[in-house]
Amino acid sequence: MSLDAFHYDRRVAFSDTDAMGVTHHANYLRYCEEARVAWMRARDLAETHWPHSDRVLALLHYQVWHMRPCTFDDLVRVYLQVRRDGLKIHFQYAIYKGEERICEAETLHVAVDTKLKPVRPLPQFLNVLEKEKWTETWLSNL
Amino acid sequence: MSLDAFHYDRRVAFSDTDAMGVTHHANYLRYCEEARVAWMRARDLAETHWPHSDRVLALLHYQVWHMRPCTFDDLVRVYLQVRRDGLKIHFQYAIYKGEERICEAETLHVAVDTKLKPVRPLPQFLNVLEKEKWTETWLSNL
Amino acid sequence: MSLDAFHYDRRVAFSDTDAMGVTHHANYLRYCEEARVAWMRARDLAETHWPHSDRVLALLHYQVWHMRPCTFDDLVRVYLQVRRDGLKIHFQYAIYKGEERICEAETLHVAVDTKLKPVRPLPQFLNVLEKEKWTETWLSNL
Amino acid sequence: MSLDAFHYDRRVAFSDTDAMGVTHHANYLRYCEEARVAWMRARDLAETHWPHSDRVLALLHYQVWHMRPCTFDDLVRVYLQVRRDGLKIHFQYAIYKGEERICEAETLHVAVDTKLKPVRPLPQFLNVLEKEKWTETWLSNL
Repeated sequence: MSLDAFHYDRRVAFSDTDAMGVTHHANYLRYCEEARVAWMRARDLAETHWPHSDRVLALLHYQVWHMRPCTFDDLVRVYLQVRRDGLKIHFQYAIYKGEERICEAETLHVAVDTKLKPVRPLPQFLNVLEKEKWTETWLSNL
Repeated sequence: MSLDAFHYDRRVAFSDTDAMGVTHHANYLRYCEEARVAWMRARDLAETHWPHSDRVLALLHYQVWHMRPCTFDDLVRVYLQVRRDGLKIHFQYAIYKGEERICEAETLHVAVDTKLKPVRPLPQFLNVLEKEKWTETWLSNL
Repeated sequence: MSLDAFHYDRRVAFSDTDAMGVTHHANYLRYCEEARVAWMRARDLAETHWPHSDRVLALLHYQVWHMRPCTFDDLVRVYLQVRRDGLKIHFQYAIYKGEERICEAETLHVAVDTKLKPVRPLPQFLNVLEKEKWTETWLSNL
Repeated sequence: MSLDAFHYDRRVAFSDTDAMGVTHHANYLRYCEEARVAWMRARDLAETHWPHSDRVLALLHYQVWHMRPCTFDDLVRVYLQVRRDGLKIHFQYAIYKGEERICEAETLHVAVDTKLKPVRPLPQFLNVLEKEKWTETWLSNL
């Protein structure tokens, strides 16, 4: 699969599976979080986030659609797109196992300081967001 | 707080917190799962679920709204309501810390066997669902 | 089973299981941590620990012996004993499923402040430790 | 740092941290498990493990020494050595953050089938083990 978007690859860990022999659903949120962090590093934004800065992206809302399972040792690829809407940051994720889209997700964030008070994202962060590509029809479940 | 609905109480564990000093978002899904299991036990349905039966409730979709944080040692109460729509089972959750609603969630399930093949819920399960109360306006974010 | 010691009961969550159908080993550390916290609450020590105080019990070393598995919905009971050795606090745990001892563990701690600097435990904490009973031969694997 | 041994690199995830701002101890067990899996893949042994085979390495005992903390976004390197003692497989781990050894661990395993019955490791696995290097004095805490 090769969607024209940032992506992050990871193996499913054994500890990520559950008694049904598949990845437990709560772990997909960790995969999405790891993909956001990898995207920030790829865009030179690590310095704008805790612990390098006093800011984090707090989560206001998320939703996840599970279409197919995956399991231990599977290589999953998380594609990600991001856009800004005022102070809110939207991320969308399409997770693939090989050629197959197995999961879709979206998360809604606001930047906060380490006291959890909402703050304006740093200019460096805003500059990057302006250059990101967003496709409204990316997620088939929305 | 006392909503007229099934509820499940639990303390936030230290391992549930993150570096912002609050409960990491992925753990709310575990709290909701624990509440579903507690509800099944309270309704005498434990026997209809793995490992006592070959059935589990697979998760198709969920969404979560975070309104306020909670942290280590907080006592949180998960209120839950459930209804059936054909083969789909809907759960909604309102999570409180003291008098304050801090989180809302909904999850959508289908019963599957241990090969993950969708199956009809057992009669015992369907009977219970018929007697559950559902309030359409329960979640303020929907 | 009824060992003459503090104990903490909890159900194994579905998310605690792995693809072998049993509780994944890393979760036993969470059960031990929850048992320590329950012990602190039972001894009126919650106020001596973060977030109510600026102190936590940092972990220096632990070991765990797995004798038998457990799985989803099992009720496990964590027995715990604790003693002080200078600035170090030793905990030992015997975990039961019904009448059967399935796991043994020990953890070694030192009190630290929120900057992770070792500190002397509060007098209230030391007073409690003096009254705790310790049986040298409690763990069969040591 | 460059110990002459197999190693596995990974970033500390945000979800791995706790309210003290450091990696929660239970996650080190996941890092060690990931390192074992990476070692198996590097030695062409993935096919000898579930889900590609009906075997897994069950955990009998482990111990972990924490010497220094690490936190979100840190790059940690897990060095690993392994040896066989009859049916038992010993792994040792030295975890580094930069030049500093922050954690040591050892885990003791036995091969089991998917019913958790102990089995003899596959010849392919035994052949690899014979060629692994083991340094008795590797861990400073033992």
